[in-house]
Amino acid sequence: MDRRSFLKTSALGGTAAAATTLAAPAYAQGKRTLTMVTTWGRGLAGVFDAAQRVADNIGAMSGGELTVDIKAAGELVGAFEVFDAVSSGQADMYHGADYYFVGQHPGYAFFTAVPFGMTAQELVNWYYHGDGMAMHDELGQIFGLKSFLAGNTGAQAGGWFSKEINGPEDFNGLKFRMPGLGGKALGKLGASVQNIPGSEVYQALASGAIDGTEWIGPWADEKAGFQEITKTYYTAGFHEPGAGLSVATNRDVFDSLSPAHQKIIEIASAEAHQWNLAQFLNNNGAALQRLQSGGVKVMEFPDSVWDAFGKASKETLDENMGDELFARIRNSVEASMAASSGWLVKSEGVYRAQRDRVLG
Amino acid sequence: MDRRSFLKTSALGGTAAAATTLAAPAYAQGKRTLTMVTTWGRGLAGVFDAAQRVADNIGAMSGGELTVDIKAAGELVGAFEVFDAVSSGQADMYHGADYYFVGQHPGYAFFTAVPFGMTAQELVNWYYHGDGMAMHDELGQIFGLKSFLAGNTGAQAGGWFSKEINGPEDFNGLKFRMPGLGGKALGKLGASVQNIPGSEVYQALASGAIDGTEWIGPWADEKAGFQEITKTYYTAGFHEPGAGLSVATNRDVFDSLSPAHQKIIEIASAEAHQWNLAQFLNNNGAALQRLQSGGVKVMEFPDSVWDAFGKASKETLDENMGDELFARIRNSVEASMAASSGWLVKSEGVYRAQRDRVLG
Repeated sequence: MDRRSFLKTSALGGTAAAATTLAAPAYAQGKRTLTMVTTWGRGLAGVFDAAQRVADNIGAMSGGELTVDIKAAGELVGAFEVFDAVSSGQADMYHGADYYFVGQHPGYAFFTAVPFGMTAQELVNWYYHGDGMAMHDELGQIFGLKSFLAGNTGAQAGGWFSKEINGPEDFNGLKFRMPGLGGKALGKLGASVQNIPGSEVYQALASGAIDGTEWIGPWADEKAGFQEITKTYYTAGFHEPGAGLSVATNRDVFDSLSPAHQKIIEIASAEAHQWNLAQFLNNNGAALQRLQSGGVKVMEFPDSVWDAFGKASKETLDENMGDELFARIRNSVEASMAASSGWLVKSEGVYRAQRDRVLG
Repeated sequence: MDRRSFLKTSALGGTAAAATTLAAPAYAQGKRTLTMVTTWGRGLAGVFDAAQRVADNIGAMSGGELTVDIKAAGELVGAFEVFDAVSSGQADMYHGADYYFVGQHPGYAFFTAVPFGMTAQELVNWYYHGDGMAMHDELGQIFGLKSFLAGNTGAQAGGWFSKEINGPEDFNGLKFRMPGLGGKALGKLGASVQNIPGSEVYQALASGAIDGTEWIGPWADEKAGFQEITKTYYTAGFHEPGAGLSVATNRDVFDSLSPAHQKIIEIASAEAHQWNLAQFLNNNGAALQRLQSGGVKVMEFPDSVWDAFGKASKETLDENMGDELFARIRNSVEASMAASSGWLVKSEGVYRAQRDRVLG
């Protein structure tokens, strides 16, 4: 029995095995500090900011009764160890991208992004007014976590390449950094896909350990410095059309908080989603202009590559349909996406096209 | 000297005249209730929900120390009287659409929507990471208000008509409900434009007092029942491409709150913006299908009408450029819109087009 099956079985038995090791501390003189581990290097543009935003607003809204001590990747545990650290009670909460944890459960992919999946707006439509939040919670119950969306990068760039991509065959043998189910899809095109934490990507690209990488978008990518290594940049990608970030709190810890503090964590997380998405989108335009001025060539994948992305993405999602919860989440996501995208095309889509036409 | 000039002059002299009449009450035994007046009839779909969301989360996050007593339009003051009621201290806060108050200052239009202006995403980019929030606050200082965005309807529908619109001349003499600067622009096409609170629009349309109306979008419009009166519906409009709603608190009241409660109002408002936008967008698709099944004919304005909308919108905005603050806000909005829309086209725009093409 693998770990995931074990945890799921335990949960079905009424006990979240991972959470039982924890004795949640009480408030001391009305105050409490939670330790937040993150998948981000300290100060990493945008993503660490989202974690900081959540922490700052929890402290401010609680009048200092509940404070958050942020540990960047590597300060307490490694980037990809935060899930198990919080599940087991070694840390109180994490801020990260849940698709790093598709090994724990493939359903987590939907709470960051899946290839050919939801845009950021489609994600929040589903999360706050469809099944999303309840399904995130259902996953969390398996692992002793209480999860909330708490950041978004917007549609991520296709990424940085050592050569131009003229057809799907150009991915064959390419060593490329891409996490989550997008990475699994890219593997079907013959790429050698690697999952590397954000703080380590620059070194991997500079050393030649990888031939290319996606990271986030112009602003965060410029801060990471990839333009110093390669000049070929694809602005649109298939893999993360609106990548959500999450805060997950150990469920015993969460349950031991006052109802007011529970609500503060929930609303601080939701607010960080909107604030962080706007941060990326407000900064990307100017950053792209600077990159282009610095000699970066901005490209789009040809249709043949998008067709291959589409086929590989569908196969990747299909492969996970044996998991009942994954299947239920996917069906819910796709129904919601179809319902909400139609109106967006008819209203904002028509408006934007007319605005561009009339204003020139 | 008109009232607006008087208030502005007073503010420049260092005193917000409208606010001096208020003696802010202290907390009684650690608790306090704020009276919120609104521009919405009780239960009006989406817009009243946003006010309720803010109120509920303020109460929950403060552990009941700060509660909000919502008064719907007409329960304490009329829909369009909420601004003056809060400015003068008759009520503590309002939830409403700030473009109802272009008579107080035309700059308020930008915090709901201006014709040919920002989409909802462009608005939050500017509001939280550009000049938006600071400029909202600058307006509020004139009138003794502390304002925050606290809802959004998304791109509003073109509206309901008693006849089809085949050219700009069809607006000549048409009695049409449209608030804000959009309404002023429509007036330039010869329409007889009326500003009617949401709760009174159905009766005005049913009685023939108006020939047509815009309200919000399929979901809220269906709840209002306009399809019972006319069957001609335009889904895209020029007038409110992403209409923001606001909470404004009397500034003396706000200043008398604890820093924690001030932050709770700020973050509860911001969260309601995201939650409310997702509410509208999650519900509009299914509502439009129901409307069509019920015999509503869904239309788009021809290019000649959009051209006329564009010309009239520019003229309307230009007419207000004599006001220094209006001009400063408009220039900031247009610079931000240009910067952030380019990236959206290159990333999410390309992705969505490819997703539609590949998935069919």
